[in-house]
Amino acid sequence: MSEFAWPIRVYWEDTDAGQIVYHARYLHFMERARSEWLRHIGIEQDQVRDEQNVVFVVTESYLKWIKPARYNDELNVTVENVKIGRASLQFEQRVCRQNQDGEELLVTATVRAAAVADGGLKPMRIPQSIYEKFVAGAKALAE
Amino acid sequence: MSEFAWPIRVYWEDTDAGQIVYHARYLHFMERARSEWLRHIGIEQDQVRDEQNVVFVVTESYLKWIKPARYNDELNVTVENVKIGRASLQFEQRVCRQNQDGEELLVTATVRAAAVADGGLKPMRIPQSIYEKFVAGAKALAE
Amino acid sequence: MSEFAWPIRVYWEDTDAGQIVYHARYLHFMERARSEWLRHIGIEQDQVRDEQNVVFVVTESYLKWIKPARYNDELNVTVENVKIGRASLQFEQRVCRQNQDGEELLVTATVRAAAVADGGLKPMRIPQSIYEKFVAGAKALAE
Amino acid sequence: MSEFAWPIRVYWEDTDAGQIVYHARYLHFMERARSEWLRHIGIEQDQVRDEQNVVFVVTESYLKWIKPARYNDELNVTVENVKIGRASLQFEQRVCRQNQDGEELLVTATVRAAAVADGGLKPMRIPQSIYEKFVAGAKALAE
Repeated sequence: MSEFAWPIRVYWEDTDAGQIVYHARYLHFMERARSEWLRHIGIEQDQVRDEQNVVFVVTESYLKWIKPARYNDELNVTVENVKIGRASLQFEQRVCRQNQDGEELLVTATVRAAAVADGGLKPMRIPQSIYEKFVAGAKALAE
Repeated sequence: MSEFAWPIRVYWEDTDAGQIVYHARYLHFMERARSEWLRHIGIEQDQVRDEQNVVFVVTESYLKWIKPARYNDELNVTVENVKIGRASLQFEQRVCRQNQDGEELLVTATVRAAAVADGGLKPMRIPQSIYEKFVAGAKALAE
Repeated sequence: MSEFAWPIRVYWEDTDAGQIVYHARYLHFMERARSEWLRHIGIEQDQVRDEQNVVFVVTESYLKWIKPARYNDELNVTVENVKIGRASLQFEQRVCRQNQDGEELLVTATVRAAAVADGGLKPMRIPQSIYEKFVAGAKALAE
Repeated sequence: MSEFAWPIRVYWEDTDAGQIVYHARYLHFMERARSEWLRHIGIEQDQVRDEQNVVFVVTESYLKWIKPARYNDELNVTVENVKIGRASLQFEQRVCRQNQDGEELLVTATVRAAAVADGGLKPMRIPQSIYEKFVAGAKALAE
């Protein structure tokens, strides 16, 4: 596995009057995929907030919208090439449309997130047990 | 004044691929108008949460969508006929479109909200100082 | 089967600073469940719009928010007791939280939707082939 | 004037359970500010879509989230340093919080948008009359 993929269906709520998916919605889709990847590697975000006082906030992102998704499309949102720092993470993500003959690339993003303490949101080191899960998860993705 | 009115412009984010405002967005618009009415009568919701531990949650609503709003429309959202209980409030609200020859009624709603304690969200009596502002504000609207 | 149920996970995007799901989001969840029930009974909304010029708009809703959902909750959203008219439909819907010992009722709604012509959004009769699918689908739910 | 600024109030709908503004919402805020700048230089987007068949879609963006906004904050969203091409535009934008002693920088973005034909969304040259308004508007911002 060189990527983690999460399926997302486009509903009316995701579209705008240009009859395409509203550009900011892809950030939602990408966060859902990251959240599911975290769950996949054994991290429940509400648990680590309650037990280790850590939450992750997006700090930087570079996005390219290549082709629009439309109502009722079936998308795949990936998480790949994850880089783990002591206080932050970086993800590559793609949104693709599932078609009969394969996949069409719609949006790409690089997303950085930082570990911060719940409440005041001060930057903090990623707690060791979580860090190890990240490293193992990122390694599994790279294989 | 028999109503409080708050102007809202329709942006792309508010619309869907049916080329009208997405039906759930009117609940956002109505909350903005209620928030601004609270501010108008001297209640800042973050202050009363921090100082008196009270937040207000919507518990019941009856909505009628009569005509659709569209991209770029200028709307007026009202708050009127407010009824104050010891632990809850009820509002009548309308969303109208501002046209050259007046206003066109788009959506109506009755909205009930309850006072709950921040954190556990247990129902609580509205603190007296806030209750008095509500009563005075509702009375001013009814005149 | 006396109901159709659709699972929905709560992500950060669905919550607000009260640390609960934002009240308007349940209308999104309910529309997703209705859309999936339509798909389940053989109706793809983009197809019927393109081929038969019909779209469905929400015209009326009565909602009760009983308990709040929170970040990371697993919800089930139902469609049940569907009533079919010649130009409109009525649904009962519930949002429940899946717990270890069963389900907890969070939100209930009655939702009415009307058939309208794509473009001008004039009310229209539900095309016969769609009407028959609705009647069969509603009957299957009632058994 | 070296920038165009648009005030935006943070409501419950904009926040998430981390008790800060949800990261994707800033893209909404920035689009509102761009839309208002277009209006300010004489371009109504629904008119140019209906009369000249052109719409603008976001194609690329680089965002930095520096500090979080919170419920009830008063923000200023700028449009500045606009660069006009024959088929695309580039904007610099900042989101600042208005405080008693001035402004605090929260989010920065570079946003590119392309002109596309309404319907099929094929890239197109910006119609001459609109292009001239853009050039004059960008020049006024740079002075």
